[in-house]
Parts: sequence; structure tokens; C-alpha cells
Amino acid sequence: MGGDFAPTNVVAGALEALRETDNRFEVVFVGPEELLRRELPSTSSGDAYSIVHASQTIDMHDGATAALKQKKDSSIAVGITLHREGKADAFVSAGNTGAVMSASTLILGRIEGVSRPTIGAFFPTVEGACLIVDAGANVDCRPRHLYEFGMMGSIYVQEMFGIDRPAVGLLNIGEEDSKGNDAAKEAFALLKASKLNFIGNIEGRDILPGKANVVVCDGFVGNVILKFGESVPSFLKTRLKAHTGGGILTKLAALMMRKTLRSALKSLDYEEHGGVPVLGVNGVSIIGHGKSTPKAFKNMILKAEEMAKKNINRRIQEALAVQ
Amino acid sequence: MGGDFAPTNVVAGALEALRETDNRFEVVFVGPEELLRRELPSTSSGDAYSIVHASQTIDMHDGATAALKQKKDSSIAVGITLHREGKADAFVSAGNTGAVMSASTLILGRIEGVSRPTIGAFFPTVEGACLIVDAGANVDCRPRHLYEFGMMGSIYVQEMFGIDRPAVGLLNIGEEDSKGNDAAKEAFALLKASKLNFIGNIEGRDILPGKANVVVCDGFVGNVILKFGESVPSFLKTRLKAHTGGGILTKLAALMMRKTLRSALKSLDYEEHGGVPVLGVNGVSIIGHGKSTPKAFKNMILKAEEMAKKNINRRIQEALAVQ
Repeated sequence: MGGDFAPTNVVAGALEALRETDNRFEVVFVGPEELLRRELPSTSSGDAYSIVHASQTIDMHDGATAALKQKKDSSIAVGITLHREGKADAFVSAGNTGAVMSASTLILGRIEGVSRPTIGAFFPTVEGACLIVDAGANVDCRPRHLYEFGMMGSIYVQEMFGIDRPAVGLLNIGEEDSKGNDAAKEAFALLKASKLNFIGNIEGRDILPGKANVVVCDGFVGNVILKFGESVPSFLKTRLKAHTGGGILTKLAALMMRKTLRSALKSLDYEEHGGVPVLGVNGVSIIGHGKSTPKAFKNMILKAEEMAKKNINRRIQEALAVQ
Repeated sequence: MGGDFAPTNVVAGALEALRETDNRFEVVFVGPEELLRRELPSTSSGDAYSIVHASQTIDMHDGATAALKQKKDSSIAVGITLHREGKADAFVSAGNTGAVMSASTLILGRIEGVSRPTIGAFFPTVEGACLIVDAGANVDCRPRHLYEFGMMGSIYVQEMFGIDRPAVGLLNIGEEDSKGNDAAKEAFALLKASKLNFIGNIEGRDILPGKANVVVCDGFVGNVILKFGESVPSFLKTRLKAHTGGGILTKLAALMMRKTLRSALKSLDYEEHGGVPVLGVNGVSIIGHGKSTPKAFKNMILKAEEMAKKNINRRIQEALAVQ
């Protein structure tokens, strides 16, 4: 029931994932049964799905903690519980981020050695994309948390993107080792002493050129940067309009260019990557954007399958146990 | 002696300021006399300038505190001391930001009621520009500091830009009153109880649309956002190039569009605004970018004159005394 277009887009995306993979896995839809049935084909399509009824829905404006307490039968709580009980190998939702994050932590539990589960987000770079971790889940972070973010982010990027020893950078206000606020200074020492491919401090200007595969920061900074980035395309559109009042030739060029610009900016829209994982919990929990399209849901489901197969959680546990 | 093109650009900009204003004020050049003489006209031009010799230069890579201790005769220290002694009404430099900030605080002293002097930076918006304060001077901030930044920023924008009761927003990770890290939550309460036109929390995505005239944040977040913003134009240029490999018509359009895009993006280059003030010290101290052009120096000097005349410091003192 998550996202602005639930359950329509959820069901459409899931069915697409099943067809594309020849029913390689099974999808369990969690939500009000009646509503779900309406979206599903009336005659059996042979697709590998089932329904588990959940009577309640946590909406985007609900406070995470209160909602989880009051709505025990929400699709988020029921779905994640199915996963904990082993009746599902992964959980995917485009619902309330705070609620999915909290429910994942509370119901699935933290991986041994992890003090703060985290959510990362993908950001476009000249080189492709980087993972910014934390993206808003943890706003007051201690050095140890930042270190864990770097470790979990590095494992995720290595396993899921096939990048060997990803470059991990600590987002800071200068490149020198001694720069930053107290948390950053201490995190620098922890990251430097780790087995990670730590490239040191990076600055705000180093993100887009792709200097690091994993950008470590607290969730306050990560959230501000991500939301700022999201706002760039529409700002440019407005400015471009204001600057193309000139001759007819300029107008024509602007018109033709619009398409090119749009596709160049497309990847600034980080939702394209189809969901972000909750890292550090005992399970696979993927959160999508509220505006997720069927395609985004399909990608989220395929990513969830991959994540479950690759057993990234065990790797995180091993990495944090030895260091 | 500040900036990458010192003293050439400094002298050229100052002379331009004098000519444009018909010697409305006097410029005191501070630096190695011989070097300065070389940049100045050999015969008297009638312009109102003088030279005060300073034998040392703090460069961009010097640590601020160490440099101020070791180089007692630096152009920064000598210039700011002239200002404190009343031999100059304002100080302008494109030198080492940390050194100018430290020297301003140490030599001029803090305004009564100010616990942390700050540096703001101008950022382009759809509406024109906003002031992001703090821009990197204070990385670990308490709620009281954030409140002071809002107060000082509001007075500066009101007096210098003629915006009546500027909209002050607290940069945060959500719009709800209860959002944010500990410092932001408490700063919210202080700002709300103040006499400012406080519009509440704003998010990263609200900066470019110009929701606030003054964006309050700690210097860590401010610095990251500013540097990220600076990197957007070159990122787009690279992406545009990658996307215009197609037909000759697209290439032609791209070529024609380049100019338009450049001018649309120009204001993302916040240096255009010609320097940022150190707010909260007993004096007028303006810091310019290391790459400042003669025009930027001219603008900085004109802004310094205006700031001195408007007596912004007294207003800050009054505002922080009553609240």
C-alpha cells in the first residue's frame, strides 16, 4: 500500500517483474485484499503471486513510531513480519520511509555489530552513480556510526554494482585530514584505520565528478544534499526560460536543446535507481520513492531478489565483527 | 595581497571603484610597498589612495591560527589593525578566509551579545539570491549560534538588499516543527520566539526556488551545499557533451544553446556577488573569493563603504541585546 499510486503501480510493477523473469520468484502482495484483487487479473494468469491481507495503511504523513504502535495490521508491519518469519525472503515498499525504517529495525532487528541501521541513496556522477550514506535516517551521528555507514555502503556497492574495493570518501568541508566538525574528525581516524579503500575527506564539489563510490555523511547533511540535487533540474528549467526570451534562432535552439538537457539531467532524478536498501538490519528491506512507477517497482523487486541471494547482511556482520 | 591575482586585480578593482565614485572615499592599499607601486600609475592620477607597507603575506594554504601568530606583519593583520585603530572604516580582502575570519574576530572583537561571528554566502535563487549563513566558519554549532546567524543574516539582508523583514528559514530535513537533529530542534524554538520573520523549517529543495531570503544552518552543512552548488555547472557541461553525440542538428542546437545555458547558470557562481561579510565583529570585514576579478574587488569595496555607512553592527548589537 506504499506510494502515491498504490496499489496500482505496485501490482503492475510486480507482475512485470514476474513476467520478465518467467516467475523466477514468488510475489506476496500485502494489503487490503479487496483492493488488491481489483488490480489483479480476474482470471488466473499463471503468475506466481499470492495475497496476504492487511487491513491498515500507514500514510506518508503519519509519525513513524506512533503509526507502528497504533496500526498493528498495517501492510508495512505485516509484510516485514512475513519476512522475519521466513515466509518471504525480502520486503519492498514505497511507503512512509520512517515507518519502513523503524519497522525494519524493530521487527527484523539489527545485524550484530551494527549500532545504527542506515538508508543510503544513489546520486548521479560523471562516472555513473555513488551511494550517499546516510540519506536521512540518522541525523545525530557519532563517529562510530559514520564508520559503520562507510563499511555497510562499501559492501553494498561492491556486491551490487560489482565495483571492487569501492572508493569511500568522508564528506567534509576541506580535504585536509584535520578538517571538519568533531564527529567528522574522529570518523576520519576510524575510517583510515579500517580495511576500507578510504580515500579521505571529500568536499561538496567532489560528489558529482564521482570522486567516491561511497560518500559518508550524517543523515542531516545527506538529506539536505539529496533534496537540493533534486531541485536543480526545475531551477535550471526556470532559468533557461528566463534566458531564452531573445531571438527566434535562440528560441529554436532552446526548444531543440530541451530534450537533450532533460536526458542529461535525468539521472539527477535518483529514483531511477529503483529504491534504496535499509542497511544493517537482519533482512532485506528496500524503500522506494512515493512516486514510484511500475518500472521502479519492478526494479526494486529485482534488486531485492539479488540482495537476498548475495547475502549482503552476512558480509556486513563479518566485516563489523573483525574490525 | 589576497587572492590568486594579487596585487594586480586588487589594485585595478580599487582604482576602478575610486574612478566610478569620483574619489568618494579613500583606499588604503596594505602590502609590500614595492609590489604595490609596480601596479599603480607612475604619475599621480589624482586618485584618493595611499599605501601602508606590510612585509608578509598569509597564503591560501597557511593554517589560520599559526599564520596569524607567525606573520605579525601580514597584510591581513596590518589591514585589520588599521581598521581597529580607526585609520580605516572597513577592511576588504580576497585572502585566506580562515585567517581573515580569525583576525577579524581577534583584532576587532565580537559585537556585544554575539557568541560566534559568522560568514554568510550568497546563493542564486529563482527570486534573485539568498544568504546562506553560516557558510563554513562554524562547523559545530549550538542552537544559540544558529539563532544568532538568523538574526545577523536578517539584519544584513534587510539593510543591504532593502528587503523588508526578510524571510528566515531554518535548513532542516523536513518541514514539520519537530524535525531535525538536536541543534536544529532547539534553534527552531529560539527562532520562532524571536522577532524575526521566521518561516520555519525549509528543506534542501527549497533553497533554489527562493523560499527564504536567509537560510540558517551550521557551517558544515552550509559549506557542503555551497561547494556542491558550485560544481553543478561543470557537471552539466560534461553530461551535455555526453548526450550530444547524436545528429548534426542536435550538435548545432547544443552549440547554440551553450551560451544560453552558461548565462542561465552564471549566477550559480556565487562569487559574482562580490564578497561576503564577516558578521558579528566590531567592524566591517569583507572576504572575497581567491579568484576575484577587478570587478569583484570593485564591488567588494563599494559594499564595504555601504556597510560602514549603514552601521549594520550597531543594529546587530541592538537586536541581540533586546532578545
